[in-house]
Amino acid sequence: MTKDKKLRLGVMLHGAGGNMAAWRYKNAPADASVNFSFYKQLAQKAEAAKLDLVFVADGLYINEKSIPHFLNRFEPLTILSALASVTSHIGLVGTLSTSYSEPFTVARQFASLDRISDGRAGWNVVTSPLEGSAKNYSKLEHPSHQLRYKIADEYLEVTNGLWDSWEEDAFIRDKKTGVFFNRDKMHTLNHQGEFFSVEGPLNISRSKQGQPVIFQAGSSEPGKDLAAKWADAVFTGHDNIEQAKEYYHDVKKRAVSFGRSPDEILIFPGISPIIGRTNEEAEKKYLEIASLVTVEDSLNYLGRFFDHFDFSQFPLDELFPDIGEIGKNSFRSTTDRIKKMAKEEQLTLRQVAIRVTTPKTTFIGTPEKVTDLLQQWFKEGAADGFMLGNAVLPDGLNDFIHYVLPLLQERGLFRSEYENDTLRGNLGIPVPKNRYSKELYFNK
Amino acid sequence: MTKDKKLRLGVMLHGAGGNMAAWRYKNAPADASVNFSFYKQLAQKAEAAKLDLVFVADGLYINEKSIPHFLNRFEPLTILSALASVTSHIGLVGTLSTSYSEPFTVARQFASLDRISDGRAGWNVVTSPLEGSAKNYSKLEHPSHQLRYKIADEYLEVTNGLWDSWEEDAFIRDKKTGVFFNRDKMHTLNHQGEFFSVEGPLNISRSKQGQPVIFQAGSSEPGKDLAAKWADAVFTGHDNIEQAKEYYHDVKKRAVSFGRSPDEILIFPGISPIIGRTNEEAEKKYLEIASLVTVEDSLNYLGRFFDHFDFSQFPLDELFPDIGEIGKNSFRSTTDRIKKMAKEEQLTLRQVAIRVTTPKTTFIGTPEKVTDLLQQWFKEGAADGFMLGNAVLPDGLNDFIHYVLPLLQERGLFRSEYENDTLRGNLGIPVPKNRYSKELYFNK
Ligand SMILES: Cc1cc2nc3c(=O)[nH]c(=O)nc-3n(C[C@H](O)[C@H](O)[C@H](O)COP(=O)(O)O)c2cc1C
Ligand SMILES: Cc1cc2nc3c(=O)[nH]c(=O)nc-3n(C[C@H](O)[C@H](O)[C@H](O)COP(=O)(O)O)c2cc1C
Repeated sequence: MTKDKKLRLGVMLHGAGGNMAAWRYKNAPADASVNFSFYKQLAQKAEAAKLDLVFVADGLYINEKSIPHFLNRFEPLTILSALASVTSHIGLVGTLSTSYSEPFTVARQFASLDRISDGRAGWNVVTSPLEGSAKNYSKLEHPSHQLRYKIADEYLEVTNGLWDSWEEDAFIRDKKTGVFFNRDKMHTLNHQGEFFSVEGPLNISRSKQGQPVIFQAGSSEPGKDLAAKWADAVFTGHDNIEQAKEYYHDVKKRAVSFGRSPDEILIFPGISPIIGRTNEEAEKKYLEIASLVTVEDSLNYLGRFFDHFDFSQFPLDELFPDIGEIGKNSFRSTTDRIKKMAKEEQLTLRQVAIRVTTPKTTFIGTPEKVTDLLQQWFKEGAADGFMLGNAVLPDGLNDFIHYVLPLLQERGLFRSEYENDTLRGNLGIPVPKNRYSKELYFNK
Repeated sequence: MTKDKKLRLGVMLHGAGGNMAAWRYKNAPADASVNFSFYKQLAQKAEAAKLDLVFVADGLYINEKSIPHFLNRFEPLTILSALASVTSHIGLVGTLSTSYSEPFTVARQFASLDRISDGRAGWNVVTSPLEGSAKNYSKLEHPSHQLRYKIADEYLEVTNGLWDSWEEDAFIRDKKTGVFFNRDKMHTLNHQGEFFSVEGPLNISRSKQGQPVIFQAGSSEPGKDLAAKWADAVFTGHDNIEQAKEYYHDVKKRAVSFGRSPDEILIFPGISPIIGRTNEEAEKKYLEIASLVTVEDSLNYLGRFFDHFDFSQFPLDELFPDIGEIGKNSFRSTTDRIKKMAKEEQLTLRQVAIRVTTPKTTFIGTPEKVTDLLQQWFKEGAADGFMLGNAVLPDGLNDFIHYVLPLLQERGLFRSEYENDTLRGNLGIPVPKNRYSKELYFNK
């Protein structure tokens, strides 16, 4: 990585914020997750601040215990497409599961977003943690963790192939001669695999950035391998620099083992900074946020990671209960982390619930303290960028832009103007060459 | 239907226009089908003219013989979402097939578009005519015509059910008490059918217009029944008033047999008017358009309706060949019409190809002549509205807006201001009541 490389910043758009009770926050619209003008305002604010991208998470199953902004929210592809036409430079990254969709449709929809936005689309590939998803998709059972990742691997082979259906110069469009395209530059994929058979060609051609940026989220062993093989960027969940560094080097090493350069895959830990002009002010903000969540809601939320396990059957102020292997087919990396933390720090159920519901982030304090941490993570190889989760919106983003961004810019760590107008261009990752292209060199 | 009811108008957005060689037209951008600013300009122009809706067709299979704007075009949901944020009143209707998609995803995406646009979404339900679609979707074979319509029927039962997951007043969002929603107003569908099992609830709630407007396109017997049972509006392909009337009364009668009011289902014949200040000027425009298409291209295009049958093996100036049942599982109503016309009028292959490629529409001539025809169709019960196909864009739409709309308005046949800001509101069709709602009367 070159010395003057800047750190990248994405911001999550998830209703009123990442905290499960964010909708109660004084400055958030309570209906934020279905409020288009709120989404538009946030995206335009992020673009004015020159952030790299907005990011939309997703899920395919809800029940009465789901957290509020999961119950009723925009679907990622539609909301990002709507934002494409009211922004001009910021990247638009949406989550979509390979376990409950068709690669032809998904390749098309992301390619279409990529063309509408003129090269700013990204796809966060997930495999769906929630078992209940199967019940919404006419499936007898949710595929196992291992199977989901096998499917995802073949799925990405197909979508990547479909995105190469048309070489850059396939469309001639000569009104005089009536020649619309060059038949030799149109390619049928003819994929025949274990899970998919897809002929192609795709009925949409490449964008200015070649193809959508691939994000991956999922930190288990097969998750890391999937990322190392296919992803341009990884969204991960560390709040501790040592773990983050370990993860960072692990994924980069795996990428190298797939014949890639470590610079071609960017690691984005998700963080939710809480910034005050003083440490005390930041602390007060944290308490204000934590107080939004009721005990009942925090137990429900904790249960979500363990297949909606009912924790209310256990005493709140005794040690976190041993519930065995429950949830191992869902958010495995998260549940492992929770169990480890509870054991190591000998936490009660209540303490675990509060920690999980409203984590007291490392990134709390004055603008200088938070900027120092970001710089340290970036310089010491724990992160190439960060995904800003923001416990509460719009204040979390406003504080970051107002207090931290200027310091990052002063230190030469973040741009003050977009370098490019595609997402790949701004992230500094290469435009993938079309596999059929005969040109020896491809100019970005 | 009340006397002062206005006729409805939609406009198709399909690249440079409905003619297969429209991209060659002098005033069209040759890359129109992937040119976002062109789409935006057309949608905004249609909205300024107070048209009811823009309409995007679709297809799931291409090959080298497909017509140019099918090869490389925007996907409907993404382009309509992008248009949602740069328009405010016009309806946004997109085509999506029930044969190659999942009802949970499709219900979500259209509901999301419906909320983003604040009640302006519509879904044109099709069953995919092209056999090749199966090859892009890991299917051994394309479902038969009959089976596709059986699937579509159950599919609409599911999506309609999912759209009722949340009653209007389900979300309380009381920041003080922390109560986000009323559990009793959230409903799981628990659909268990022949083709689908879908639990629900959907993770997005109803829009201002209740749910997306359902269009249907497909004029065979089972197609008409599907429309009569489920559709708010039908897109059909007649250019002859007698056939159109027959179709109109047939569908309305079927709707009544499903217990509906005939006013609840609107019939939109697709037309491509060619307007000149004189009949001669209109005729000249027709010839200019027809001359865009080469003979080779017109044979290819004809073949598309017959499963990509190769007509070039037959002599051009002999009678249209008998090719048996080929294509009967695809665009059946269209192929039947073509065969009938060829036989009745004793046309050669060349004549059929030109007629099919560049149909000489009934709606050709001076503004007065075209307006008279629209009025006649509307008043005599052949149409509740029209879908403007426009052989070439932007001129076809410009001519219509400039020459015909003012006459329609003078005659009291078309609005000069939107009556409403939802699509249902402007079409004058009711907001469907949520099936679980206990209120006796529902105020639109
Ligand atoms: C930081 C992070 C963000 C994630 N975001 C989503 C999401 O938005 N939607 C989703 O279905 N899964 C999401 N996942 C879940 C994973 O993609 C994956 O489906 C699940 O966690 C199992 O993978 P793992 O065991 O490799 O972590 C996320 C996981 C991580 C670590
Ligand atoms: C006016 C009209 C427009 C249609 N538009 C589409 C379309 O955009 N995409 C599609 O896949 N099928 C489209 N169809 C095809 C039908 O939806 C249907 O899948 C096929 O024609 C078989 O139905 P039928 O035999 O009932 O006509 C259209 C049909 C008609 C009559």
